[in-house]
Amino acid sequence: MKLLKKKNKSDEYIIVIGCGRLGSHLASLLSRDGCSVVIIDKDEKSFSSLEQDFGGFTIEADGIEDEVLREAKIDQADVLVATTDDDNANIMIAQIAKVVYKVPKVIARLHDPNRYKIYQELDIETVSPTILSALEFQNIIARDFEDIEEAN
Amino acid sequence: MKLLKKKNKSDEYIIVIGCGRLGSHLASLLSRDGCSVVIIDKDEKSFSSLEQDFGGFTIEADGIEDEVLREAKIDQADVLVATTDDDNANIMIAQIAKVVYKVPKVIARLHDPNRYKIYQELDIETVSPTILSALEFQNIIARDFEDIEEAN
Repeated sequence: MKLLKKKNKSDEYIIVIGCGRLGSHLASLLSRDGCSVVIIDKDEKSFSSLEQDFGGFTIEADGIEDEVLREAKIDQADVLVATTDDDNANIMIAQIAKVVYKVPKVIARLHDPNRYKIYQELDIETVSPTILSALEFQNIIARDFEDIEEAN
Repeated sequence: MKLLKKKNKSDEYIIVIGCGRLGSHLASLLSRDGCSVVIIDKDEKSFSSLEQDFGGFTIEADGIEDEVLREAKIDQADVLVATTDDDNANIMIAQIAKVVYKVPKVIARLHDPNRYKIYQELDIETVSPTILSALEFQNIIARDFEDIEEAN
């Protein structure tokens, strides 16, 4: 596991690509944690999903473009998170961040669980909303059945 | 919390509405757990996402229709899970299952976190892929910073 160089949250510089439901929610959480956050999305309207207390910066542009990543000062980023709806875009952005700019921590949203192997091969850490949610449903269902067994 | 009447997994009868990425993944997991699963979707093609070892039944129809729910024997279901992409559909199906058919356990996917309050008011248990995933990203980021603090 790669370790980040800074340890105070206010020193952390985090780039979030994609301001959909997940990206905007995450950027708001991280900003509230005291991190410096820049969020990038092609669609300016998407930034309206950010919480009102969001203290970071927004860039209206395609986060897959090198020029845009440089404008976002990717060379200084501690963390890059790729949360777009497009697995190909997330893989490409994550690879550029890791390989070209040596961002210490790169995490991508995995949209299609069947593509998990590709991310693994490229050594990109992933978060899969589908897998997380299916496990959560399964836990809720299992939990209630366990309660009955204990009661008996 | 309502308790289910049966305790052996092979006795559990679970209806899953929506065979998108989440619904199909969950139905496959539950089927593998030994549950009896029926999955309902308007689009027959969606069933191709189910794992090959899926041992449940599929119904090609709109899960919001009462006739379809009765065909799926909702009156005998222990659990109903609404996983469509449409929060309104999930809320309506969950309400019908709870109020009309008294399904002991009803869980809905919450697509738009801003609508969480409506689900709460209707006392519908929810799983939000967006909230779960944002917390997972946040944990991964926080974890690495903690590692540094421990190392220092």
